[in-house]
Amino acid sequence: MLATAAFEAFESHLERAVDQLDGASPTKALVRAHFAFDDPSAKRGKRLRPRIMVAVAQAEGAAAETAFPAATAVELLHNFSLVHDDIEDRDDMRHGRATLWKQHGIPAALTAGDAMCALAFTMLLEGPADAERTVAMTACLHRALYDLCRGQGADIGFETSPSVTFGEYLAMIEGKTAALFAASCELGALAAGAAPARAAAYGRMGRAYGLAFQVRDDILGTWGTPAETGKPAGADIRRRKWSFPVAWAMDGPPSRDRDRVARAYSSIGELDDATADAVIAALERLGAHQAADDACDAYVAQAAAAAIEHELDGDGQLAEIFSSTARRTA
Amino acid sequence: MLATAAFEAFESHLERAVDQLDGASPTKALVRAHFAFDDPSAKRGKRLRPRIMVAVAQAEGAAAETAFPAATAVELLHNFSLVHDDIEDRDDMRHGRATLWKQHGIPAALTAGDAMCALAFTMLLEGPADAERTVAMTACLHRALYDLCRGQGADIGFETSPSVTFGEYLAMIEGKTAALFAASCELGALAAGAAPARAAAYGRMGRAYGLAFQVRDDILGTWGTPAETGKPAGADIRRRKWSFPVAWAMDGPPSRDRDRVARAYSSIGELDDATADAVIAALERLGAHQAADDACDAYVAQAAAAAIEHELDGDGQLAEIFSSTARRTA
Repeated sequence: MLATAAFEAFESHLERAVDQLDGASPTKALVRAHFAFDDPSAKRGKRLRPRIMVAVAQAEGAAAETAFPAATAVELLHNFSLVHDDIEDRDDMRHGRATLWKQHGIPAALTAGDAMCALAFTMLLEGPADAERTVAMTACLHRALYDLCRGQGADIGFETSPSVTFGEYLAMIEGKTAALFAASCELGALAAGAAPARAAAYGRMGRAYGLAFQVRDDILGTWGTPAETGKPAGADIRRRKWSFPVAWAMDGPPSRDRDRVARAYSSIGELDDATADAVIAALERLGAHQAADDACDAYVAQAAAAAIEHELDGDGQLAEIFSSTARRTA
Repeated sequence: MLATAAFEAFESHLERAVDQLDGASPTKALVRAHFAFDDPSAKRGKRLRPRIMVAVAQAEGAAAETAFPAATAVELLHNFSLVHDDIEDRDDMRHGRATLWKQHGIPAALTAGDAMCALAFTMLLEGPADAERTVAMTACLHRALYDLCRGQGADIGFETSPSVTFGEYLAMIEGKTAALFAASCELGALAAGAAPARAAAYGRMGRAYGLAFQVRDDILGTWGTPAETGKPAGADIRRRKWSFPVAWAMDGPPSRDRDRVARAYSSIGELDDATADAVIAALERLGAHQAADDACDAYVAQAAAAAIEHELDGDGQLAEIFSSTARRTA
């Protein structure tokens, strides 16, 4: 994992990037507020993508700092998507504080998100790589941005769909989550000077890891412990989210438990406590919890296998990140 | 101006770009709906920026089509900003039809806008220019995107500001409007193979033109004829927008008319008919209408002077676009 000193150096790099925004516009203050730069005690994001990118760069024999410009770009783009997602999902809280739109209204928050997107790409375009590599890196991150929108668009569509196939669910998380992890790994390698084919292998590894990450997230959204996740029990089920366990169970053979889930998911609005509990129990009986655990493990194994096949993980930092994600409870 | 055949060729190019979006995601259908590609009788945008870019490319001795990839990028980015602006301003109608968020809800429209942004840059990154030029063009458009956000953020801030200086107003329209016109002209030249310094001169010309365009827009928002603009009389004043005439008048010496405007602008919500009419009459008496006309003419003259100084406008197409904008009533 990114050692504390390197992590703090990355945080400074990120803050300096944000400080390039024009202070005469209120947008800068909003972006700073989103990152809570002025509150040292505030809960921050885990910076998981930058950590992975640094590990990739180091595996390629480069110094941690080599990955910082690209990692800043990825972290800014990830946070752009969080700011827009919070508007779309009408989420009030993130990292224990009011979300940007909740604090400053939708117009200002939406625009601050757009500015973060612009800043993200500027980090790459003004980065140290030569023109050829800069085009490859910028194109890689723009493809990820589009995949992210495609996945997010599909997820929004699910909310009003009578049913979602397991294949549609997988395509959605590939876009919404795995694409940016894939791009992170590819960019970490490109920043370190890896050849395009080798960087693409890192990308495939990152994609598998991203799927594992999302399936674990889905497991926690159904079976996570509120004290650990900071979210209500069964949050995804209450909101009738088409997460892994639901999409998997609905793809299975007809049964009374499957009908129970289908009925709840064809209703409108949030599920009440009793219905959510009944759905979660039905999913457990259908084997969806075990299937999700197995899928998460399988994706982690796939990422690890890619790393071994192409000798991507010099000192085992990546394997450590992968397995800690597979076990995470928060 | 862009001849009809070339304009239709550009429209096809734009539609083919949108059709690169993944059809399995609902986002593609939304972007197509925004452009009304499936309704030949629908009112379309004027494609003013692509028209200017083609004129610039032709002035540089290149064929109209040379500008199409970059013009597609600019038109997509312009429309991304319209989709997000419509959400922020809660505008219900554009080009005589319901706006995207009004038809499909904020979450889906916001995401479709983000996808348009990603697609815009992909057009440049996969365009025909070499790596060096591609980086320059992509960086140019990303700077414009950031300026656009900066201007939009400032404009949103004005809504809750007790007062706005004329300088703040000018900085806002430089970001919100002039930056993308500047980038359009610079990109048209870069696409045609112009040297960076010459492309930058086109950019300065485009910036002046963009300011003229916005001041004219502001004049129409106060004194335009509803039958021509398609908007209610005095639309900007009703909504207490800090447009040119208001920012200019409030920057002048104290007077009863200035107090009248200040009082109306320090109220909350939309102005009623009588108050809006009184504000418009006060602005007229203060000379704000004439000042705005003069400023628009001065910016057009500045753009024309830049074109003459650097011999940017081979066959006079740009001068024609500039002067038609200065006179436009819709």
